[in-house]
Amino acid sequence: MKKIVIIPDSFKGTISSQEAGRIIEEEAKKRWPDVETVRMEIADGGEGSVDAFLSVLDGEKKQVKVRGPYGEQVESFYGKIKETAVIEMAAAAGLPLAGERLNAGEATTYGVGELILDALQGGVKKIILGLGGSATNEGGAGALAALGVKFLNERGEEFIPVGNTLHCIKKIDLSELDQRIKETEILVMCDVSTVLCGANGATAIFGPQKGVEPEDVSRLDDGLRHFAEKIYEVTGKEILQLEGGGAAGGMGAGIAAILGGKLMSGIDVMLDTITFEEVLKDTSMVITGEGKIDGQSSYGKVISGVAKRAKKYQVPVIALAGAVTEDADLLYEMGVSAMFGINRRALSFEELKATTKIDLRKTAESIFRLMDLSSKV
Amino acid sequence: MKKIVIIPDSFKGTISSQEAGRIIEEEAKKRWPDVETVRMEIADGGEGSVDAFLSVLDGEKKQVKVRGPYGEQVESFYGKIKETAVIEMAAAAGLPLAGERLNAGEATTYGVGELILDALQGGVKKIILGLGGSATNEGGAGALAALGVKFLNERGEEFIPVGNTLHCIKKIDLSELDQRIKETEILVMCDVSTVLCGANGATAIFGPQKGVEPEDVSRLDDGLRHFAEKIYEVTGKEILQLEGGGAAGGMGAGIAAILGGKLMSGIDVMLDTITFEEVLKDTSMVITGEGKIDGQSSYGKVISGVAKRAKKYQVPVIALAGAVTEDADLLYEMGVSAMFGINRRALSFEELKATTKIDLRKTAESIFRLMDLSSKV
Repeated sequence: MKKIVIIPDSFKGTISSQEAGRIIEEEAKKRWPDVETVRMEIADGGEGSVDAFLSVLDGEKKQVKVRGPYGEQVESFYGKIKETAVIEMAAAAGLPLAGERLNAGEATTYGVGELILDALQGGVKKIILGLGGSATNEGGAGALAALGVKFLNERGEEFIPVGNTLHCIKKIDLSELDQRIKETEILVMCDVSTVLCGANGATAIFGPQKGVEPEDVSRLDDGLRHFAEKIYEVTGKEILQLEGGGAAGGMGAGIAAILGGKLMSGIDVMLDTITFEEVLKDTSMVITGEGKIDGQSSYGKVISGVAKRAKKYQVPVIALAGAVTEDADLLYEMGVSAMFGINRRALSFEELKATTKIDLRKTAESIFRLMDLSSKV
Repeated sequence: MKKIVIIPDSFKGTISSQEAGRIIEEEAKKRWPDVETVRMEIADGGEGSVDAFLSVLDGEKKQVKVRGPYGEQVESFYGKIKETAVIEMAAAAGLPLAGERLNAGEATTYGVGELILDALQGGVKKIILGLGGSATNEGGAGALAALGVKFLNERGEEFIPVGNTLHCIKKIDLSELDQRIKETEILVMCDVSTVLCGANGATAIFGPQKGVEPEDVSRLDDGLRHFAEKIYEVTGKEILQLEGGGAAGGMGAGIAAILGGKLMSGIDVMLDTITFEEVLKDTSMVITGEGKIDGQSSYGKVISGVAKRAKKYQVPVIALAGAVTEDADLLYEMGVSAMFGINRRALSFEELKATTKIDLRKTAESIFRLMDLSSKV
C-alpha cells in the first residue's frame, strides 16, 4: 500500500464530501501511518461545486453582489482558477437562497448571468457552469437577459421572462449578446438524464421540490416548450431532446442553444478538470462513496465516474454508501472492486442520521482492518 | 488463502445458522474455487442445538414421545453421539411447542426429564443439556420429578410442581432419584448472565416473552425463591446467586443443585465438544456472525467464543451481523479482526427482513472481493 486516493461525494443529508473524506483519511492513517493519502472533494455541479474545485486546484473565490432568485440583491461568488471561472448556478438562483419562499414560476437566473459577466470582465477564457439545486424553471432566460439577449413580447416590449411568463415571448433578439461569449468555452456540469419538457422534463421531475403545485406543472412545462420554439426560430437549434437540457429548470437547454455551452456529466467535467487520471498514477487504491449506490449511480454519478477512470489504470476502487440497492452490481463491471453499506443497525434513514458519521468511520475502520489482514493471509 | 472456516450463528428471526453458512460458503467458493471451506453450524443451547451438533459430529437423532409443556404427548428428540446425549430442553418444553397458549405458570419441563431418562436407558455417560427458548418457569422441577425426585406438599402428598405451585413444596425427597445420574457428566449450555430470582432473574427478564403478565412476575419470582430454599434444605446448596441459574425458567439452578449439572456458556460447550481448536489448525480465516453484535455478544455469545479460540491460534476472524452497536469494539480486543453490518439500506428491521439473505450474500461477496484485491495491492 503506497498511496490511497480518497474521493467521496457527499452522503446527501448527512455528511459533506469534505467531512466524509476526512473521516476516511483518519481511519486510513490510523491503520497505515506511513501511507500517502490524497483527499479530494467532489461535486457534480450542484451546491459546493466551487469549493470542491478550489479544494483541489489553486485559485480564488470571488465575491460578487448579484440578483437573487427573486430579484433581491444577494452576496454571491464564483471560483477563478487561472483563466477559468467555476460558477455554480445555485450560488445566485439556488434553493437555499429561495428559503421558505419557493416559487419556481417567479424565480430568475438573472444573477447567474451577472456572475458570468463578472467572470468575462475578469478575462476568463473558459467557464465551468454547474447546474443543480436550482429554484428556477425559466430555461436560463434570466441569465441570458443579463448577458444581452433581448426577449420581446407581442407588443415588441423587452422583458425578462420567468417561468410564469415564458409564454409571453414573441421574439428573441441576439444582436446585443455579449460578444466575449463567442470566445469563451463553456462547459456545463449537469445531470444529463433530464430533458427540457414532458414526463422526464425539468418541471415534472424537479418542479415539486421547487414548490411547483401539481396543477401548475403542465402550464410551466408548456412555457418551456414555447421557449424552445422561440429558440428554434432564432437559432435553428432543436433543444427539446437535448440530454441535460432540463437541468436547473431548463437552464441547460438555454445555455446550450444560445451560449454554445456543452452539456456534460458534472462528475466527468470535474474529474477531467482536476486531471484525476494523473492523480491515479502510482495509486494503490481509491476510496469513494455517496449517499446511495444504485442503477442511477451507474449512469453518470460520482462512483461510476471515478470507477471508469480507475479501471483504465487498473486501480481498485472501494465504494461506501448509505444505501446499496440490488442493481448496484452493475458497478462491478464499471471498475468498482467492492461496495459496502455503512449502516450498522436496522433502522430508518431518519433514525440512522444521528450515527452516520460514526457508522462511516467504523465501516472504513473495518475495511482497512480487513485489507490489512488480507495482505498477510 | 488455504482454508476458510465458516461458523455463523443464526441471524435471529431471519436466517438460520445453516443457511447463513451456506450463503457465505457459496460466495467464498465463487471467489476462490480451490480454497477449502469448512462450514459449521453453531448453537448456544436453544432450539437447533441438537441439529448443530449432529451437523458437525457423527451421531443419530433419536425420536421419543414425551410430555409437552402442558402435559400433552409430543414427538420429541435428542441427539446421540457415541456415549453422549445432546438434549435441547426446547424440544420438550419450548416456546414453539406452547404455541399460542403461552402460560409459563402452568408449563412443565417433565418431558425434558423423560428425554434424559431415555438417554440414560440407552447407556450414555455424558449429557449435554441445552437451555434456551423455554416456555416454563418452574426451576426444572418437572424434569427432576421425571427422574425420581419427589416433591411433597404440606399434607405429605406427592405432586409435580409448576411455576404456579412451587410455593406448595414443603419438602423435597431425593431418595428415589435415578442412580445413573451420579455416574453421568452433565454439561448445561446456558446464558450464564441470568440468575434465578430478582430483577435480573428468570421471571423478570424472560417471563414476559413466555406470557407472564406484569402482575404475576413477583408471585412467580417468589415461587422460585421458595424452590431455592427447599433445595437448600435438602442439598445444602445455595443457588440464588448461581450464574446461569435463571436459564430456562430457573431450570439451570435445579439441574445444577440436584443433578450436579455444570452451568456453562452454551457456545463454549459446543466449541469444546466439536474440538473447534483442532479445526482451527491450518485455517487462514474464520467467518462468523450473528443477528446482533453488541456488548452482550462479548459476554459469552457466539462471536466472542469463536474469536477467543481463533486468537489463540492467530487466525483472523471476520464477523458479520444485522446490527453492530457502538460497544461492539470490545470484540476487537477479543480477537475479531473486522466487523461488518450487512444492511444495505436505511430501513427498519421489519422492512429489511425481506432482503436479509441477499444482503448477507452481497456483503460476503464484497468482503471476499476486498480480500482478494488486498492480497494483490
